[in-house]
Amino acid sequence: MNIRLYNARILTMEKDRPVFWGEVWIKNEKIAYVADTEELASEWDKDFPKINWDLEIDCKENLLMPGFKDAHTHSAMTFLRSYADDVPLQKWLNEKVFPLEKKLTGEDIYHLTRLAVLEYLTSGITAVFDMYLTPDTVARACMEMGMRCVLTSGLNNFTSSIEQVEEEYLRWNQKQSLISYQLGFHAEYTCSKELLYRLAQLSHKYRAPVYTHLSETEREVEECRNQYGMTPAVFLDSMGLFEFGGGGYHCVHLTDSDMDVFRRRRLYVITNPASNTKLASGIAPVSEFIRKKIPVAIGTDGPASNNCLDMFREMFLVAGLSKLKEGDAAGIDALQVLNMATVQGAKAMHLSKCDVLAKGRYADIIMIDLNQPNMQPIHDIPRNIVYSGSKSNVCMTMINGKILYRNGEFNVGCSAESIYEKCGEIVERLIG
Amino acid sequence: MNIRLYNARILTMEKDRPVFWGEVWIKNEKIAYVADTEELASEWDKDFPKINWDLEIDCKENLLMPGFKDAHTHSAMTFLRSYADDVPLQKWLNEKVFPLEKKLTGEDIYHLTRLAVLEYLTSGITAVFDMYLTPDTVARACMEMGMRCVLTSGLNNFTSSIEQVEEEYLRWNQKQSLISYQLGFHAEYTCSKELLYRLAQLSHKYRAPVYTHLSETEREVEECRNQYGMTPAVFLDSMGLFEFGGGGYHCVHLTDSDMDVFRRRRLYVITNPASNTKLASGIAPVSEFIRKKIPVAIGTDGPASNNCLDMFREMFLVAGLSKLKEGDAAGIDALQVLNMATVQGAKAMHLSKCDVLAKGRYADIIMIDLNQPNMQPIHDIPRNIVYSGSKSNVCMTMINGKILYRNGEFNVGCSAESIYEKCGEIVERLIG
Repeated sequence: MNIRLYNARILTMEKDRPVFWGEVWIKNEKIAYVADTEELASEWDKDFPKINWDLEIDCKENLLMPGFKDAHTHSAMTFLRSYADDVPLQKWLNEKVFPLEKKLTGEDIYHLTRLAVLEYLTSGITAVFDMYLTPDTVARACMEMGMRCVLTSGLNNFTSSIEQVEEEYLRWNQKQSLISYQLGFHAEYTCSKELLYRLAQLSHKYRAPVYTHLSETEREVEECRNQYGMTPAVFLDSMGLFEFGGGGYHCVHLTDSDMDVFRRRRLYVITNPASNTKLASGIAPVSEFIRKKIPVAIGTDGPASNNCLDMFREMFLVAGLSKLKEGDAAGIDALQVLNMATVQGAKAMHLSKCDVLAKGRYADIIMIDLNQPNMQPIHDIPRNIVYSGSKSNVCMTMINGKILYRNGEFNVGCSAESIYEKCGEIVERLIG
Repeated sequence: MNIRLYNARILTMEKDRPVFWGEVWIKNEKIAYVADTEELASEWDKDFPKINWDLEIDCKENLLMPGFKDAHTHSAMTFLRSYADDVPLQKWLNEKVFPLEKKLTGEDIYHLTRLAVLEYLTSGITAVFDMYLTPDTVARACMEMGMRCVLTSGLNNFTSSIEQVEEEYLRWNQKQSLISYQLGFHAEYTCSKELLYRLAQLSHKYRAPVYTHLSETEREVEECRNQYGMTPAVFLDSMGLFEFGGGGYHCVHLTDSDMDVFRRRRLYVITNPASNTKLASGIAPVSEFIRKKIPVAIGTDGPASNNCLDMFREMFLVAGLSKLKEGDAAGIDALQVLNMATVQGAKAMHLSKCDVLAKGRYADIIMIDLNQPNMQPIHDIPRNIVYSGSKSNVCMTMINGKILYRNGEFNVGCSAESIYEKCGEIVERLIG
């Protein structure tokens, strides 16, 4: 497919390149050309090759930019949305989440992931870093619908195994362009030392980064200190888990020593502000991470805790909560946050060809409708997006060169209603 | 106009009445009938009067509920959206906001308010409590577009006067059904004692409540203590300003004595969490207000500080930030927040006939699209709205019996584009 997106404002998210007017051309799954209006004019003068366009879209002066990268989620937890809110965290996990998760089949997870994919598309999310029980059925849901997904294992003492993780790692990294796989485990507090040691060996074998939930709550840090005499990041690093990089989800309660580990190992903080807010876990010191040059990406966390999969909410919270924590309205600025939600997310997920809009990158592109009241006037587009943007501004989501969502309509091979219905049946069976 | 809204889920927001299936009938500007399916069936059996419907809308199992009440805003500040973010609060006010406001004409404020009204409608906001420079042109914008608006004066040492406030108070309370007026002043720190004394006299003359910005920042509280030896609420009460009720905007830094004043005078806290977050002012102790039985309503604040006029963002933040402040995920629950955003807002604004869906109330009704991925599955509708809702779920906004917004289209007497264009011209003239 040759697709031409013209009459657009463009924010490529390349360093120091502000918004400009121009066009983006797509050939199959990749970006073939990104050019500003002047460059185009001069090219047309030359003997520019004639292209037979399969589709030409007038962007009507709206904005094209890279899609958002949701760098931490548990997609299939859609079934628990609004089921167990407003209860204390431990009670939430032990009485609500865990007993129901035991009843889930791989097929359930397939359908529940599909519901999440619809929601990602409405929010301009073009890639997700998904940790859940049956990576194979998560991958199937994403591939069928056209969603880009980096799988990671939620390995722990009760589910999955080192052998399974190795098998999945090898199988899902065989160049499917939409799916890849990174080593991961659920958390320090759900894994034995033996299991962590074996995962570290696997990481060394493949020189692969490792990802995990890390220092989400004070209690978790306290208990790790009691058990190992170290904070989680320091302890896990001492086990050799981070020698090839990786990252931590949440990272609300990192100590200076933990941050040293992050800096030394070039680990990514993947911050989840809505989840940390709603579950009362605390505010991550994102401004401090930035001062210490620790890279930061953003994730929604799963819909059981957040409860929505909306990168606009997350971006406002990353900026706002940092300002609040530092007591300084001049804290993190909007463009930094937008960078975390796109470029840094791609890097954290090892999606190096999905970071910016440029020739040769995968065509993971969204269009932001600026002709809506919350985007007017247009003083500063990154600020408009971060501080007043909403999923209602997403008028197109393209992944791998394919338009999956446009003007409120999905193009994912089946109707949204059929997915709602199927998920409704699953919920009925699980919860009644 | 006789309008019938059928095949709906209904949340009237009456106390202890959960969501039910039914219909809402509207006759001119008021609700004529709200009934559940069973009641309707039995009514049809009787000799039910035939009605000639002007419009019948199949709600397709979506939710009807009262519109949101934005209990504190400065609508016309749309011109500053994304113009002055990421700078410290005092610099923001003194170098960015005040100099530009000096250049504003009443006509500018008319057009800039119209832009805000479009945005309110997209977020299901059916009434606003607006404090800005020229209440007359704010009222004109709202009346022409069909927006319900409670005006209040931003009286201070530099703009407006007691005489003007009294004249406006009398003129705008002459039973225009869309517009009313409450006494107000900008803040303790922008008004002389003499001016406050005269406003208190006015309040006593008309037995009228008084509203003001209150304890938004620590610095404001500190400076009031230095000048008067009292915190703002205690000082203002000692001046006799709150003998007939009213309320405070923001209320981030209330002391126990301040809360005593609020309880004794039955004042409303009107909380503005997004603004307080983004300007790093702090987190209001909303859970404590509730424990002390101080009524709480919600406002967006103006688009210069927030930067958007979105009640969904505010509702998530009211719940989330309270949980965060208390360190307790079981803090405020979703239904309480929804009550603040509707019923309590109406009470705070003295819109007693706009609080719930019931016979005889004004038809200020919104429809929430439940057939979107972020609203699925439907375990608990109030939680879905507060925790995963978005303005993209608002598929109809009706005020005073008139549908002003439906499925993304405005019905406000002119095109959205003409408003964007006019506001663009104003911004160009003011800022260049």
